Amino acid sequence: MSAVEIVTIGDELLLGFTIDTNGAWLARQLGELGIPVTRRGSVGDERAAMTSAVQDALDRTGAVITTGGLGPTADDVTKPAMAALFGRDLYFDEAQWEHIRTLWRTRRGTEPPEVNRQQVMLPVGCHVLVNRHGTAPGIWLEDERGRWVAMLPGVPREMRGIYTEELRPRLASRTGAAGHPIRSTTIRTTGIAESALPERLGEAARGVLGLSLAYLPGQEGVDLRLTARGIPGDVADERLRDAARLIVERVGTPVYAAGATDLAEVVLELCRSRGMTLAVAESCTGGMLGERLTAVAGSSDVFLGGVISYSNEVKERLLDVDAAVLRAHGAVSLEVARGMAAGARHRTGATAGIGITGIAGPGGGSPEKPVGTVCIAVDIAGQEPVAIRSQMIGDRAEIRFRATQAALDMVRRQLDPLR
Amino acid sequence: MSAVEIVTIGDELLLGFTIDTNGAWLARQLGELGIPVTRRGSVGDERAAMTSAVQDALDRTGAVITTGGLGPTADDVTKPAMAALFGRDLYFDEAQWEHIRTLWRTRRGTEPPEVNRQQVMLPVGCHVLVNRHGTAPGIWLEDERGRWVAMLPGVPREMRGIYTEELRPRLASRTGAAGHPIRSTTIRTTGIAESALPERLGEAARGVLGLSLAYLPGQEGVDLRLTARGIPGDVADERLRDAARLIVERVGTPVYAAGATDLAEVVLELCRSRGMTLAVAESCTGGMLGERLTAVAGSSDVFLGGVISYSNEVKERLLDVDAAVLRAHGAVSLEVARGMAAGARHRTGATAGIGITGIAGPGGGSPEKPVGTVCIAVDIAGQEPVAIRSQMIGDRAEIRFRATQAALDMVRRQLDPLR
Repeated sequence: MSAVEIVTIGDELLLGFTIDTNGAWLARQLGELGIPVTRRGSVGDERAAMTSAVQDALDRTGAVITTGGLGPTADDVTKPAMAALFGRDLYFDEAQWEHIRTLWRTRRGTEPPEVNRQQVMLPVGCHVLVNRHGTAPGIWLEDERGRWVAMLPGVPREMRGIYTEELRPRLASRTGAAGHPIRSTTIRTTGIAESALPERLGEAARGVLGLSLAYLPGQEGVDLRLTARGIPGDVADERLRDAARLIVERVGTPVYAAGATDLAEVVLELCRSRGMTLAVAESCTGGMLGERLTAVAGSSDVFLGGVISYSNEVKERLLDVDAAVLRAHGAVSLEVARGMAAGARHRTGATAGIGITGIAGPGGGSPEKPVGTVCIAVDIAGQEPVAIRSQMIGDRAEIRFRATQAALDMVRRQLDPLR
Repeated sequence: MSAVEIVTIGDELLLGFTIDTNGAWLARQLGELGIPVTRRGSVGDERAAMTSAVQDALDRTGAVITTGGLGPTADDVTKPAMAALFGRDLYFDEAQWEHIRTLWRTRRGTEPPEVNRQQVMLPVGCHVLVNRHGTAPGIWLEDERGRWVAMLPGVPREMRGIYTEELRPRLASRTGAAGHPIRSTTIRTTGIAESALPERLGEAARGVLGLSLAYLPGQEGVDLRLTARGIPGDVADERLRDAARLIVERVGTPVYAAGATDLAEVVLELCRSRGMTLAVAESCTGGMLGERLTAVAGSSDVFLGGVISYSNEVKERLLDVDAAVLRAHGAVSLEVARGMAAGARHRTGATAGIGITGIAGPGGGSPEKPVGTVCIAVDIAGQEPVAIRSQMIGDRAEIRFRATQAALDMVRRQLDPLR
């Protein structure tokens, strides 16, 4: 097929209460198959709007994936709407009902409620996309002209499972060698402004070697994404490699990764390759740095743990920060950050300690130390400890995240000073 | 206006590399003004597709908000596309250029790069929506028939600032008393299956008092959202209150909040009202529980901190978990969870301690303790300590999140046993 459109369904999407992560996930998966997504849309749980959106999309591409509206409750109307659009009746599918009963018996030891029966009312002539992760079956509906709609449930775990096990193979077998896969590489930078990048990149600023270049600013820094479209796979890979090398060279130190790697992963790998271990002492970030480090599977050979020292007393009791230093300089100070980093290191026996203390807001700021003031220290065995004071922008969540990113970047630059 | 459509622009949205949080945020804001969003769409950085999507949306509603494509780089083409759609030329706006220069001088102490000049090429006859948070001005473009497009930048912080300060007042003055605001209430549950809720809710399962009821399953549990549309504000508020009361009563213990409150906030408030303080000891969650508790502003009067005991040695050194217990039962055991909770409490001097230890995967599982096995203990002064072993579903991130949710819910049920 030449292209697919994605329609995500649910009042909650239009009300903005739910963020559409399904559409993005599906788009990435389709890209890997070389199937471009040309448009995405969201409509409510209302038959007329749903029907019109899918009809429009079918007219443009003949190929539509929907998510949502297959649940057991009354607001789930995707199936009847799509059945009507394709001129089909609904029937009760005994085999799918057995599947749901088995699932309930195994997982909960009881029979499913009657309401689940609605989930197995399926359009005549459809192909069932088996759901091994929940009760709502996925459905493939196709007309005599080969135009199709694939309906997936809205629960991300179930949607992903059905796509991977049932829909992906189906699409792959249809695509054949038609489309070149969309391939991309991300070069991740931190500590540099988006508009300062084109100067460093020179003529590569608008893309290079026939690849497009996107600038993606976010809390973590600015990501540079190179994307190859309509280029055969092996050629694309080579060009992406060459272009990434060029960009890394031009941008220099702010680059912390090529690929979709979190800075925490980079820091763990730098420590690992040097035989080092790491510990944290967190005040304003309250555990977020530890959380980021342990989000990486296999981090336990480097990361030992640490202390969340939200109160001053915990800073003294568990990190040996001097009470006199706390009194003299205040909890948010270079001196206390240094004491926390040293305490984390010594109390856990790690090679390196990181200390973060700051004012995440919205309260607690002062003229000398406004909201967003963060002090970070890094204490590595055999090196002079370093500490910085920085002013983070954004709300509480952003200030906290940026503090963890700056702390990780300090460790990176300490360990990899030549970059 | 009767309705608005939102079109978010960017190749990254179609490729699925970026998740569209802007569209959801805008939809919520518009709902508060009583302006329904009837459809949302995403297109790439390509003039033809962008123009056609906005044209379609204008034909349906005459009112469109776009985000994205206003940046300083070459992939940002929203302005020329929309200028052409409205038959306008672009001009260089001196006043906006001065604004950008001032911003750069203040923030960075330098002149802006030449590339920023592209951001102040504006459509003739437009109204500028001033950006006080960055360099890309927002733009309001309207034709003689009153049909309009409001263009906002894609960077969330800037988009939100411009909407709040510039676009919202403009929309509010146009709306007048036309639409009733969309109002909603969320009742949050945890520890109950989506399909078990209708039985408890009885005839309220499909909504009540003219309000719609949506079932929103997620990692935190199942949220029940009541929404009032087309109902005058004061009547809606009263019905939402009554309906929420009914639902809370019918569902019972699994309800932990009415309103958009995180369970961490509920637990902090329960502790606060009892004059209690809280500490954590985290192994597999690596700081995530502390992060959730400290994400709540003002948590410092209850939350003292704790220990991230990722390694066994840290469990012994900082939490006094007995080495013999670790050897006999393994790090993931009820006994070690109990020791961690007690250690967190005693080492920090808190009234209550929470201990979490588990196998988040993907590695580390065994037949006796498969991936997803989590042991959680809660140790409250003056109460018998409690500990559970639970099997979490999902990937590493989900298992970790569900573990923090289960831990918080244990504290809630301990402190509020009558619910």
